[in-house]
Amino acid sequence: MANGLRDLLRVPPGGPARLDHRDPDDTPGFRGKKAKARAALDDLAPLLSDLQERLFAAATGGSRRRLLLVLQGMDTSGKGGTVKHVIGHLNPAGCRIRAFKAPTPEELGHHFLWRVSNGLPRAGEIGIFDRSHYEDVLAVRVHHLVDKEVWSRRYAEINAWEEALVRDGLVLVKVFLHIGDEEQRARLLRRLDRTDKHWKFSRNDITERGLWPRYRTAYEAALERCSTEPAPWYVVPANRRWYRNWAVSRLLLEHLREIDPRFPPGDFDVEEARRRLLAE
Amino acid sequence: MANGLRDLLRVPPGGPARLDHRDPDDTPGFRGKKAKARAALDDLAPLLSDLQERLFAAATGGSRRRLLLVLQGMDTSGKGGTVKHVIGHLNPAGCRIRAFKAPTPEELGHHFLWRVSNGLPRAGEIGIFDRSHYEDVLAVRVHHLVDKEVWSRRYAEINAWEEALVRDGLVLVKVFLHIGDEEQRARLLRRLDRTDKHWKFSRNDITERGLWPRYRTAYEAALERCSTEPAPWYVVPANRRWYRNWAVSRLLLEHLREIDPRFPPGDFDVEEARRRLLAE
Repeated sequence: MANGLRDLLRVPPGGPARLDHRDPDDTPGFRGKKAKARAALDDLAPLLSDLQERLFAAATGGSRRRLLLVLQGMDTSGKGGTVKHVIGHLNPAGCRIRAFKAPTPEELGHHFLWRVSNGLPRAGEIGIFDRSHYEDVLAVRVHHLVDKEVWSRRYAEINAWEEALVRDGLVLVKVFLHIGDEEQRARLLRRLDRTDKHWKFSRNDITERGLWPRYRTAYEAALERCSTEPAPWYVVPANRRWYRNWAVSRLLLEHLREIDPRFPPGDFDVEEARRRLLAE
Repeated sequence: MANGLRDLLRVPPGGPARLDHRDPDDTPGFRGKKAKARAALDDLAPLLSDLQERLFAAATGGSRRRLLLVLQGMDTSGKGGTVKHVIGHLNPAGCRIRAFKAPTPEELGHHFLWRVSNGLPRAGEIGIFDRSHYEDVLAVRVHHLVDKEVWSRRYAEINAWEEALVRDGLVLVKVFLHIGDEEQRARLLRRLDRTDKHWKFSRNDITERGLWPRYRTAYEAALERCSTEPAPWYVVPANRRWYRNWAVSRLLLEHLREIDPRFPPGDFDVEEARRRLLAE
């Protein structure tokens, strides 16, 4: 698969997203089961790690390239698990991870893109957003937190902002982790069964779950209106954790390979440096 | 070894640090060679990972506990390698990593503790400083970047600041990675041999190396004057990477165990939540 996973999972610019036609149990682009996926993930890890080091090194030579992975999905869809199992294979020194919760009063005093702008990766870094500016057209829309007039213009604002970042050297990988209704129920029940998982649970999770149909509508609108040529959305079926981890790793790999970062040449005379070091 | 490594590596409050009496090839507290150390590191990883999750979870229940690992050492002493190989075993979502370079004009406009304050870990997080506020009594002292009158009062300012943080729930683990002069020469030469490592090398590294005796004096002063009861310094012999990785992991483990973070209880009725989930 050259760059095949991107094509398989991408929402066509303008849509349709058709989440009801995408089976969250599916494993597009991967033949095999859990054990094979785990082995494939282990094979991807050193490739990702090498590309990350090159990306980081290239920035010291003046490159502006950087990558931002945006993770969206319903509760329990595996955003945190993806950070742990996919990003956990990278060098943490080159990662900038931000989890976005309900905005603080200070954040609410700014335009909605302000807080995410502050969390963007610098040149050479890989950024990860666990939730993102998309909450401002998802939770905000579902809960009527601002007028329709306000949220409805945000799609175009997001597209313009993202396009400017991409022109500036940022590569955006926007991933929607797609889990099924029954799978979510099972995962929430499992959290209840384990006292060491209770801290991850809140009554609010059940309320949010009841709003699933409205979230689906809001997600489809975001995926369709904001899957653009420079910054497409990818829908990753996420009922199977092993597929989710493999697919996100593979998407990162395809994008990093396209950047093709190179180690910069030194700005010094190697022979002279060697002589000086040996002379002391 | 209960909490033994801390006692073995700690600089006694007030000193002496006696770096010349500490062999950078030594492996205090560890009997064995590379293979055994790597196996021991693999054994430590799940323990650290579990404690990290508990620390993170405890903060959602109101705990203010957090940990900051400060890494200092000469060029090539392995600060970056420690982040990669030790912190790389943790969940990156719970880590806040900052590398401090020469200060920017904005940073210079503030008190020297301003920029490090901005990079501190929040409750539940593990922070890592690759270089730190100690540069303001190390590089700054060696290069006479401010008057002696200014840098000499910084030791007490650091101690007061660190003590206040510790009283507020922060656990400080300050590690000096101690490599030998010949080992540094060998590591710099190896960087010259590999074009994919040239980006890590600058002519300045050789100049800095020439200042080794002055750095040693500055390091000893910092280790002696700022190894306090609430925030001691540890000297980790770092000629052997496998020992360095094991020792820093072990120090983290001992401190996390002392925090003894617990999963917080849920703030909901488990049976009611289960009924609601199953009823839909």
